[in-house]
Amino acid sequence: MSSQQRTSWNVQSSTMAQSAHNPIRQIVDKLKLDPQATKSFISLSVGDPTIFGNFNIDSSANDAVIRQLQTFKHNGYPPAHGTVDARNAVATMVTCPEAPVTADDVLLTNGCSGALDICFNVLGNPGNNILLPRPGFSLYGSLATIRGMESKYYDLLPEENWQIDLKHMESLIDEKTCAILVNNPSNPCGSVYSKEHLQAILAVAAKHHVPIIADEIYCDLVFKGNTFYSMASLTTEVPILSVGGLAKKWLVPGWRVGWIVVHDRHHILDAVREGLLNLSQVVLGPNSVIQAALQDILHHTPETFYQETIEQLEKNTKLSMDAVSKIPGLKPVQPQGAMYMMVGIELEKFKDIGSDVEFSQKLLAEESVLCLPGECFTYPNFIRIVITPTVDRLEEAYKRMAEFCDRHTK
Amino acid sequence: MSSQQRTSWNVQSSTMAQSAHNPIRQIVDKLKLDPQATKSFISLSVGDPTIFGNFNIDSSANDAVIRQLQTFKHNGYPPAHGTVDARNAVATMVTCPEAPVTADDVLLTNGCSGALDICFNVLGNPGNNILLPRPGFSLYGSLATIRGMESKYYDLLPEENWQIDLKHMESLIDEKTCAILVNNPSNPCGSVYSKEHLQAILAVAAKHHVPIIADEIYCDLVFKGNTFYSMASLTTEVPILSVGGLAKKWLVPGWRVGWIVVHDRHHILDAVREGLLNLSQVVLGPNSVIQAALQDILHHTPETFYQETIEQLEKNTKLSMDAVSKIPGLKPVQPQGAMYMMVGIELEKFKDIGSDVEFSQKLLAEESVLCLPGECFTYPNFIRIVITPTVDRLEEAYKRMAEFCDRHTK
Ligand SMILES: Cc1ncc(COP(=O)(O)O)c(C=O)c1O
Ligand SMILES: Cc1ncc(COP(=O)(O)O)c(C=O)c1O
Repeated sequence: MSSQQRTSWNVQSSTMAQSAHNPIRQIVDKLKLDPQATKSFISLSVGDPTIFGNFNIDSSANDAVIRQLQTFKHNGYPPAHGTVDARNAVATMVTCPEAPVTADDVLLTNGCSGALDICFNVLGNPGNNILLPRPGFSLYGSLATIRGMESKYYDLLPEENWQIDLKHMESLIDEKTCAILVNNPSNPCGSVYSKEHLQAILAVAAKHHVPIIADEIYCDLVFKGNTFYSMASLTTEVPILSVGGLAKKWLVPGWRVGWIVVHDRHHILDAVREGLLNLSQVVLGPNSVIQAALQDILHHTPETFYQETIEQLEKNTKLSMDAVSKIPGLKPVQPQGAMYMMVGIELEKFKDIGSDVEFSQKLLAEESVLCLPGECFTYPNFIRIVITPTVDRLEEAYKRMAEFCDRHTK
Repeated sequence: MSSQQRTSWNVQSSTMAQSAHNPIRQIVDKLKLDPQATKSFISLSVGDPTIFGNFNIDSSANDAVIRQLQTFKHNGYPPAHGTVDARNAVATMVTCPEAPVTADDVLLTNGCSGALDICFNVLGNPGNNILLPRPGFSLYGSLATIRGMESKYYDLLPEENWQIDLKHMESLIDEKTCAILVNNPSNPCGSVYSKEHLQAILAVAAKHHVPIIADEIYCDLVFKGNTFYSMASLTTEVPILSVGGLAKKWLVPGWRVGWIVVHDRHHILDAVREGLLNLSQVVLGPNSVIQAALQDILHHTPETFYQETIEQLEKNTKLSMDAVSKIPGLKPVQPQGAMYMMVGIELEKFKDIGSDVEFSQKLLAEESVLCLPGECFTYPNFIRIVITPTVDRLEEAYKRMAEFCDRHTK
C-alpha cells in the first residue's frame, strides 16, 4: 500500500450509477402510489400490452420457442451479435429494394433498450449532444445522461399530428451533435409520420451530415389511412441505425429481444460497425433459444395475428378518443398508431389542479386510475393514456375520469 | 445551426466502442483460423460446455420453461431487477446462517457478464482502479477499460494451486482502488480456494476497507476433496457483491440469466444498492419466461444432475492430466474444479516455438486442435484447455498434441 490507508468503510456508488435514475420511476414515486381503496385499480400507465390478458403472442410463435427448447440444441453461447440465422431472419424481414440489407447488417440485442444503449454508446462521446424528441420516451434522455452527453430536445407539434418542428430541430444542430433520434411511430404520441415528413427530416440530417437513430419498435402498428415507412427506405445518403424488437409488434416485451439494423450505402459507418461489434461483446445478446425460433416468429406468424392486434388497438383508440373528447378540461390528440394517446389538460379550466403531475396524483388518489403525467416525457400539461386495457376497463376508467374532471373543473 | 456546418460525412465510433474490443477475439483472429484441412477440427478453446452434446440441461429444468411458456402469463415486462419470485428463488438458494439474504438483496441480470458489467459500473468511476486476477477471465479487463478504470493485476501462484499472492495483491491497493475481484472457482485455472485462503483474502480487504466482487459463476463445480465456500459466508465485515448465473452449473450459457447478490451486514452499501437498481433499469434484466421458471430450475433440478455433471468433469480432468503430463514440453497444473486446465509450456525444450501464441498457432495449423494461448488471460507461456469435450475427442486431441510436441521439442 503506497499511500494513506483508509481507516473506515466509505463505499459510494459511481456518478454513472447515480445519474442512471429512471425519471418515470422518480415521478411515479412522487405520486405516492396510494390508490383509492374502495375502487379497483386501473393502470393506464405501463406500455406493456400483455398485462390485461387481451393481447397475447400468437401461439405459433410460442410453439416455435417450445420446439426449439425440445431439441436441447440451442443452449450454448450464440455469437455476441446474434446467430447468423437470427440475424438473417431480421434482415430478410426488413430488407427492401430501397434499403437492401443482409445478416451482416444486423445485430441482435437485449431488447430495443439494449439496442438503443449500444447505438448511443457507439455514436456519442462524453461532451457530444444528441437530438431527442419532446415529448419522447424517457430512456433516451437517461442514456444520454449516463454517457455524459447533452440531450437537446426538439419540439413535436401536437396541432400537426406531432410532426417535428424542423426549424427548431435544425437550430439545435452544432458541431458536437452526434445523432438525431427519430421515433416513429411514437411513444408517447401515437403519431405516424408521412413519407413527406420523413423525407424532410432526412433532408436536414443530410444537409448537416448527422446520422440518424431510427427507433422503429412500433413499426407496422399503424391504423387505417396511415402507412409506416422505415426511414432507411427513404434515403440512399443518410446513414441510419434502425432499432426494433419483439416487444410490441409480437407482444412479448418480457422476452428481451431487440435488434439494430445498419443502413449505410456509402461506407460512412465502417468504424461504427466495428464499434457496434465491440460493444455487443460486453454483455452478449438475447436468449439463444428465442434466437433459434426467430425465423419462425418473424416469418411464420400468420397475417391475421397482426391484423387482429391492429384492429383491437384501433377500436380501443376510437373508444378512447370518443370518451375523452367529451370530458371537460381534456383535449386528446388523435393517435395514428402505436398504443398511446396524449391528452392535453386545459389547466385554466380546473379549479384546484395546477399541473399534470397534480392531475395524475389526484386522479389516482380519488379514482384509482393511473396515467403518467407528461412530465415523464419532458412534456408538461399533458397526460399519456395507454390504450391497451380491455374495453370494459377502459370504459370504466373514462367514466371515472369524467366524474373526476366534472368535480374539479370550474 | 449556430456554428460551422459540416461539409461531409465523418462519423467515427466513440472511444468507448473502440476500447471495448475483446482481447480473446483479437488474439484468436491473429491465429489465422486455418485448421489443417485433412484433420477434423477439435476445439478445446471455448468455455461453452454445451457444444459437444455431452453436457445438457436437466430435462426437468427445460420442462419448467416449457410449462411457463404454455401459460402465456409471463410475456410482460418483469421489474427491471427481476420478478420477486425469481429473486426469491436465488435468495433461498444462496442464503445461509453465516450470510443470510432475501429477495431484496438480489438483482437478476443478463448473464453473469451483465452482472459484472453492473458491478463494475456501480463501484468504479473513471480514474479508479480495480484489482483483477492474473491469469483471469478477459471480460474483467475489458469492463475496466470501457469504464476508464485502471486494471491492476494481482498474481496467482501456479505452484500453490493458483492461490493469490496476497503480498502482491495488498501492495497494489491504493486510495483509488474501488474493488477487489476474486474469481473462485477460477476460469482459466480450475482452482478452488480453501476456506483459509479465502479468509486471508478477506482480511486484506477488511484491513484496507475495499469491497469485493466475488465471481462465483462456477460455484459448486468442485471435485472430490475440495469444498466451495462462498466468500460472503466467511465474513460479517467485508461488503461483497457476489455474481453468478445459470450458464455453467445448469449448462445453459445461451439463456443469459445471471444475478448479483448484495451481502452487506453493516449498511456500507446502501448507496450502492440504489445505484444497482438505477443501473438495472437501463437495459432491464433477463427473459421473463425463464424468470418464471427459475424457482423450478434452482430448487427442483434433481441432485443426480449436479452429481453427473461433476463426475463427468472430474473424469475428463483426470484423463487430461494423465495424458498431458506425459507430453514432452507441457506441464499441466492439477485443476480442482470448474471446466479448465492450465498447461505450462516449457519453451526452452522447444526447437521452433517461441511463445504460447505461436504454440497455439502451429498446433492449429498442423493438428487442427485449438487451445487458447495464455495471452488471452494476460498469462503468457501457458495454454488453457477446456476439458468439456467428449472423451474420444479429448483423447484424439491429446494424441495429436503429443505428436506435435514430439516433433517440435529438441
Ligand atoms: C419508443 C420505445 N423505444 C424502445 C422501447 C424499449 O423496448 P424494449 O422493451 O424492447 O427494450 C420502448 C418501450 O416501451 C419504447 O416505447
Ligand atoms: C469467470 C467467468 N465469469 C463470468 C462469465 C460470464 O458468464 P455468462 O455467460 O453468464 O455471462 C464467464 C463465462 O465464461 C466466466 O468464465
